[in-house]
Amino acid sequence: MNALTRRGLLVGIGAAGGAGAMYAAMGALGLAPAEQAGAFTPPAPGDFTLRGRASARVVIVGAGIAGLTVAYELGKAGYDCTLLEAGERAGGRNLTLRGGDRVSETSGPAQEVRFGEGVYFNAGPGRIAPWMLTMDYCRELGIPVETFVNNNAHAYVHTKGRTVRARAARADMYGYIAELLAKATNVGALNRTLTKDDKERLLEFLRRFGDLGPAYEYDGSSRRGFVKYPAVTRGIPLDPPGALHQILAAATGRAITNDFGYDQATPMFQPVGGMDAIVRALTAAVGPGRIRTGVQVTGITTRQNDVEVTWSGGAHTADYCVVTLPPHVLATVPHNLGAAVQAALKTPVPVAAGKIGLEYGRRWWEIDDRIYGGITETDLDITHIWYPSHDYHARRGLIVGYYASEGQAELYGALTPEDRLRRALTQGKKIHGEKYRSELLSSVSIAWERRPHIRGGWARWPAFDSSFTLLQRPSGRVYFAGDWLTYLIAWQAGAMESARNAVTQLHQRVLQSP
Amino acid sequence: MNALTRRGLLVGIGAAGGAGAMYAAMGALGLAPAEQAGAFTPPAPGDFTLRGRASARVVIVGAGIAGLTVAYELGKAGYDCTLLEAGERAGGRNLTLRGGDRVSETSGPAQEVRFGEGVYFNAGPGRIAPWMLTMDYCRELGIPVETFVNNNAHAYVHTKGRTVRARAARADMYGYIAELLAKATNVGALNRTLTKDDKERLLEFLRRFGDLGPAYEYDGSSRRGFVKYPAVTRGIPLDPPGALHQILAAATGRAITNDFGYDQATPMFQPVGGMDAIVRALTAAVGPGRIRTGVQVTGITTRQNDVEVTWSGGAHTADYCVVTLPPHVLATVPHNLGAAVQAALKTPVPVAAGKIGLEYGRRWWEIDDRIYGGITETDLDITHIWYPSHDYHARRGLIVGYYASEGQAELYGALTPEDRLRRALTQGKKIHGEKYRSELLSSVSIAWERRPHIRGGWARWPAFDSSFTLLQRPSGRVYFAGDWLTYLIAWQAGAMESARNAVTQLHQRVLQSP
Repeated sequence: MNALTRRGLLVGIGAAGGAGAMYAAMGALGLAPAEQAGAFTPPAPGDFTLRGRASARVVIVGAGIAGLTVAYELGKAGYDCTLLEAGERAGGRNLTLRGGDRVSETSGPAQEVRFGEGVYFNAGPGRIAPWMLTMDYCRELGIPVETFVNNNAHAYVHTKGRTVRARAARADMYGYIAELLAKATNVGALNRTLTKDDKERLLEFLRRFGDLGPAYEYDGSSRRGFVKYPAVTRGIPLDPPGALHQILAAATGRAITNDFGYDQATPMFQPVGGMDAIVRALTAAVGPGRIRTGVQVTGITTRQNDVEVTWSGGAHTADYCVVTLPPHVLATVPHNLGAAVQAALKTPVPVAAGKIGLEYGRRWWEIDDRIYGGITETDLDITHIWYPSHDYHARRGLIVGYYASEGQAELYGALTPEDRLRRALTQGKKIHGEKYRSELLSSVSIAWERRPHIRGGWARWPAFDSSFTLLQRPSGRVYFAGDWLTYLIAWQAGAMESARNAVTQLHQRVLQSP
Repeated sequence: MNALTRRGLLVGIGAAGGAGAMYAAMGALGLAPAEQAGAFTPPAPGDFTLRGRASARVVIVGAGIAGLTVAYELGKAGYDCTLLEAGERAGGRNLTLRGGDRVSETSGPAQEVRFGEGVYFNAGPGRIAPWMLTMDYCRELGIPVETFVNNNAHAYVHTKGRTVRARAARADMYGYIAELLAKATNVGALNRTLTKDDKERLLEFLRRFGDLGPAYEYDGSSRRGFVKYPAVTRGIPLDPPGALHQILAAATGRAITNDFGYDQATPMFQPVGGMDAIVRALTAAVGPGRIRTGVQVTGITTRQNDVEVTWSGGAHTADYCVVTLPPHVLATVPHNLGAAVQAALKTPVPVAAGKIGLEYGRRWWEIDDRIYGGITETDLDITHIWYPSHDYHARRGLIVGYYASEGQAELYGALTPEDRLRRALTQGKKIHGEKYRSELLSSVSIAWERRPHIRGGWARWPAFDSSFTLLQRPSGRVYFAGDWLTYLIAWQAGAMESARNAVTQLHQRVLQSP
């Protein structure tokens, strides 16, 4: 998600101050080595053996990506970790659904997943930016990654009831803004801003940027694509573009700038075979025996010399605890961490998010539409349609029929699974026609705000204020971790960064404790 | 290659005329089904058995992609095809080099390829656009394809001696042109062009497009990237952008619009494991026994009832011949096809093209620079640096240290392989530093204009004139095929389209002959 707005960044520039100057001296271009890894040093066995100290027992509440990463990093130094997971399996929102799986919600019927062999649906996170820590863990854990197509010029843009290829929407918008700016430049409107050299360079750029004609006019471009692409003959172009007024009224702006953000820029990545490859690899590294599933914690008590975690019919005592539950879920668990902690936990607002996976027996989007991966952007309530970036030309395939958040996700989540499907098909048909319904094999939808023990797609802080920083530090012997404690909310990388933060603090404390 | 300029397209709009109108009626948006496959119907055994006719013997000169495709399609109907290939192996410019291979040129020493296990270098074509026929053949032949990253926001742009991330170059240029156009709009310079509604929509778009501030000013954006990306803390931004004058003087325009063309737009694709998977699959389908290598044709004679192809020490007679040599090579072969054909063959100009593959024992571009695939664009004579879009996080990897054509390729091609390497490393070091040289394991370079039997990267028509159309038709019993006979020059798709064109004409003739 676009956790940082531009305004947020500008606040950040002020806040960073001295550190920014230091890093700038290292190379203002992001060239500093290991820029993302930062200063994290994983705990190592030698940390204890060389200092004559013993490692500690740590109980981790929640076996999502944050909890697994905490256990994995602490495990490198021999900590005795126990993970308590309320659900039936580890992974949290990192959930990949396959045939035979069953998806339950807090109310309503469970869905049986009926996908064929090899078909999967990343119901939670689905993409990774190259600068994210998630890539480091994939490398460290030997998880093969492949390209995730986040921008496809050959996918569609559907706005105001009309469907065009993304490449055409982009060429037209760029063409006209280049023409307008060239016109303004040539009539002297920017003479006070631009030198003669600037003007020449700007015009040269605009001609290239907009594919303008000799008089800096935009009247179409091969960049828009063709009815029949060039081959033995020259190709049959599309109809000429609409007039400027029509192009502006089409409101394609959001769609064609969708990958401009630092967290959405091309290329992105995904683990081969499903996002839960990360869960499997972390689980294997942690040791599956350390994870107790079906344990819903009902109490957390920090004490002078230890911490106790209880549940219906059981309790676990350890030296330290790391809680990785979502804040709105943790806020419902009795604890003795104090009123400030409780108030802070209640500050972030859970956000609804949902997706639907649509399985087809024929990859018509590849065969008929020549869309290999990427996203069709719409102004419908489905927002996006994702096409798979893997197993191209396979027989079956799965597209994501909506990926909605906030109000639109609540709207879909409130429906029965059958009605979600019906609605998604009605919308998608507007773009892809009758086959969108007629060729469907099966589907499954997820409404994260209705998932037991999770109850939200992610959490939104009204402001990154003192509640946020309070929970980045321990309360007694209890540490907190999760993507919601970072500026990478809704990204696995956030969970991993937060886990490293908790691990670093906990390990330093253990090493320094008498 | 960008075979079609915008001007070329506009000529095409006029030329297409009636057909354009017809296709437009089918849906102006490229929505017509099977838009690329066109009207091609592969020959089928039933074409003969149902009509009481016999198939024919066809000799194909050149076993590159065009020749292989001709043999493959004719073979579907049982034609008796023989391919004569001057080189040691089939594939032509579709050449993937691996450890143990040997690369020879028309003069100078041969290069031994020393790459480690699993490392390969696509020395010829390296990428496929989704609308291209190449994708259809990959599907039909069961060749797995994966995404080729043709635009990477995290790669670099190196111009005027400075290196920035592509995302920063793009954000700054877009930011400033949005600011300038907003300014011109707000001072009324475009009042005669824009209605009030237009203005509002334009300003809304510009704010989004340039990530502008409240007064429509550009003063940086998180889209530029960070020194340290957001995590537990807010992230450390880059230094603020240069002033407008500096950004324009940096001349990043070519680099940041590099994938705007219809043939370069994101995403693109490649066969898994190397481009020559296409050669292997076509060869297997054709039957390797039909390909005679090391046969350099010295004569082509079309006669009343057959055609004879001769070489030193041998001859082959068939009913028809399809010649797929490059035009400048074919023009040196004695034939009886007439003066007009010979003049036409001499019209296209061979173009030099070269690449160097640099093998490293560590994927420092992934680990240090977080560049996973994509291209760094430069104004140096290396033009581009390509990073591999496959086997991410593998131990070894190969980058393309230059991909040059025309004059810059001639410059590199004229050097010894050692000097090509030395020069490429000197240039690449300006971007990537000393490791670019010190961590190199091995390299191999190709200069297509110096390759025996090929002698060019591709051919350029001064104009797509009557010589071009003359050779799209047979001369006697001899047909011509190759990418150079299409508007997809330098693309394998061109060779395939041209092959289908020759196959269609030849098969119709055989079916109609008495």
